[in-house]
Amino acid sequence: MHLGELDTPAVVVDLDVLERNIRRLAEYCRQHQLSLRPHTKTHKIPEIARWQIEAGAVGITVAKVGEAEVMTAAGLDNLLIAYPVIGRSKLERLMALASGNKMLVALDSAEALDGIALAAHQAGTSLGILVECDLGMKRCGVQTPEEALRLASQAHNRPGVEFEGILFYPGQVRVPPDLQPSLLSAVSEKLEHLLDSFHRAGLPCRIVSGGSTPTAFNSHLIKGMNEIRPGTYVFNDRNTLELGACTLEDCALRVLATVVSTAVPNKAIIDGGSKTFSSDRLMAGAKEDFGLIVADPGLRLVGMTEEHGHLDISRSARPLHIGSRLSIIPNHVCTCVNMHNQIYYHRGGEVQGCWQVAARGRVS
Amino acid sequence: MHLGELDTPAVVVDLDVLERNIRRLAEYCRQHQLSLRPHTKTHKIPEIARWQIEAGAVGITVAKVGEAEVMTAAGLDNLLIAYPVIGRSKLERLMALASGNKMLVALDSAEALDGIALAAHQAGTSLGILVECDLGMKRCGVQTPEEALRLASQAHNRPGVEFEGILFYPGQVRVPPDLQPSLLSAVSEKLEHLLDSFHRAGLPCRIVSGGSTPTAFNSHLIKGMNEIRPGTYVFNDRNTLELGACTLEDCALRVLATVVSTAVPNKAIIDGGSKTFSSDRLMAGAKEDFGLIVADPGLRLVGMTEEHGHLDISRSARPLHIGSRLSIIPNHVCTCVNMHNQIYYHRGGEVQGCWQVAARGRVS
Repeated sequence: MHLGELDTPAVVVDLDVLERNIRRLAEYCRQHQLSLRPHTKTHKIPEIARWQIEAGAVGITVAKVGEAEVMTAAGLDNLLIAYPVIGRSKLERLMALASGNKMLVALDSAEALDGIALAAHQAGTSLGILVECDLGMKRCGVQTPEEALRLASQAHNRPGVEFEGILFYPGQVRVPPDLQPSLLSAVSEKLEHLLDSFHRAGLPCRIVSGGSTPTAFNSHLIKGMNEIRPGTYVFNDRNTLELGACTLEDCALRVLATVVSTAVPNKAIIDGGSKTFSSDRLMAGAKEDFGLIVADPGLRLVGMTEEHGHLDISRSARPLHIGSRLSIIPNHVCTCVNMHNQIYYHRGGEVQGCWQVAARGRVS
Repeated sequence: MHLGELDTPAVVVDLDVLERNIRRLAEYCRQHQLSLRPHTKTHKIPEIARWQIEAGAVGITVAKVGEAEVMTAAGLDNLLIAYPVIGRSKLERLMALASGNKMLVALDSAEALDGIALAAHQAGTSLGILVECDLGMKRCGVQTPEEALRLASQAHNRPGVEFEGILFYPGQVRVPPDLQPSLLSAVSEKLEHLLDSFHRAGLPCRIVSGGSTPTAFNSHLIKGMNEIRPGTYVFNDRNTLELGACTLEDCALRVLATVVSTAVPNKAIIDGGSKTFSSDRLMAGAKEDFGLIVADPGLRLVGMTEEHGHLDISRSARPLHIGSRLSIIPNHVCTCVNMHNQIYYHRGGEVQGCWQVAARGRVS
């Protein structure tokens, strides 16, 4: 079946581009002796996670216990939950996972550590601990080397857990790659200071995990980091493109949509809105539009209601009519994929199959 | 099980409030001789649709063919697809639905009408047609009485279809109910003009379908309208509340979330972000915040990343710690529910069960 025959809206992935994206970052990591532990929150698809492992990733990252359950059930091992696991129910589920799989968990509080250590000790199992440190993102993470050391010391030699190192997310670095060096050297400086403290305290960090898609190919500029966890790089999206962190040819995923109404002057409506694309705005720049219409950038996706995408056709050269099909790069590919139960894959426009977005909706 | 024992994030519905919301609008519609055909895009749950029918609704509304498939499979009948059905695959599926169920479809183009009429005629079945008219929303809908009449005439006495009336969506009326009369009289005027044209042409409109949640209890002010299609009223949300179109006591749905990090000063992180709440902004007013924290409005949900909700705790009197649980009214309940595979229901805090959001993800 050709892409043109797929019912819309449909999310489609170009396998050639996906494979190239996976291969290229794996190759970069090999060159720079960086471990790659891709964040699977972007695709939530075990089949793609396995390809990432086959290309050289040391393991995978997930955000939620529920995502870890889906991934381990599909045979993935060596998982990092880059999210504090809090509460009795989640701890029980985490211990069930840890009994058969190598599990790492990031955390930034004594409460989270105490919960995990006690549960693991009682369950007779063990988990690796990464202390999350805030190197500028201001979301999670302890604020000072002293706090990081305190948590690490509490994890060190404690039954049920093994202190493995530190984790951070440089999500604040959202400028084009050629403008990143000065920002990354600020991250580097904080990290070196942190690692010095650990070194002096005699607490070695086996894992120093950071990295994001926008900074992926500048990861070697962050001294001391030995692992990265980018997610978006497999597909890329309008955010990555506008940032100059990928090219149009690197965008593996499109939303196919059909024009269903042209009744209102200067406007056309496509059959996908916020329940197809997500309502995420562009993260940088003018923050306008909800996607990039590849064939005609003059045609703008200016608005979203739940099932209607609102096109401004006033500056478009393209004649649009009911039934016209468009191929659109979403602003934020992670939240877009999260809307869908399945996504299709193709080579050169020939649909080869369909993946279930198996870990979708595993919010807890 | 008590709500306090549910793993988070979790979406929970207070059955007493839900039932009261369903009953109250059904009662209003009976009083004013209005047919009620609730839009099920809000909940996507056949069980709730059945309650709406039992309370007096004449049928249900859906946005997509896929949603109609789920609803009819669950035994619902008399469905309106308030969305133009375009393309061969969807037409085939629509005909399969029409062979066993009473189906109405809204449309605003000759292309949509031709497709449906031809497919229905070939399939030996018949569908009701509502001509969608734009009475100010500027999304879909023909622009003039002449265009409406032209489409209606094309549907009249045509094999495969039956012209049933007109449909509009007064979504542009987003002011508090007491300020709505002047806006609704503008809608009324356009509608009367439209109905006059149909009357003069000898094309009776059996169904004149409009209505939204914000205007629900002012529906009697739109003269000539005999059916309404509100969706949100079953649960209500922060949008409805801020608009003054419901009270806090009418908000049936909450997101339960847990504080998982307090490491960053003046901030706390909860375990739900845009993949739990959706990233929809408030539609009216300051457009700030991503939900209302009922117990402490000084505690603000100011930011969203995929799995992190960012709380500004600087003006909160409430002591927050890791593990603190919050109950939050989402900005837009339709897009919030759409994130989840299941939602829980309770009475007085005792969890009674869980619905599958069965029509979720049926985007085509």
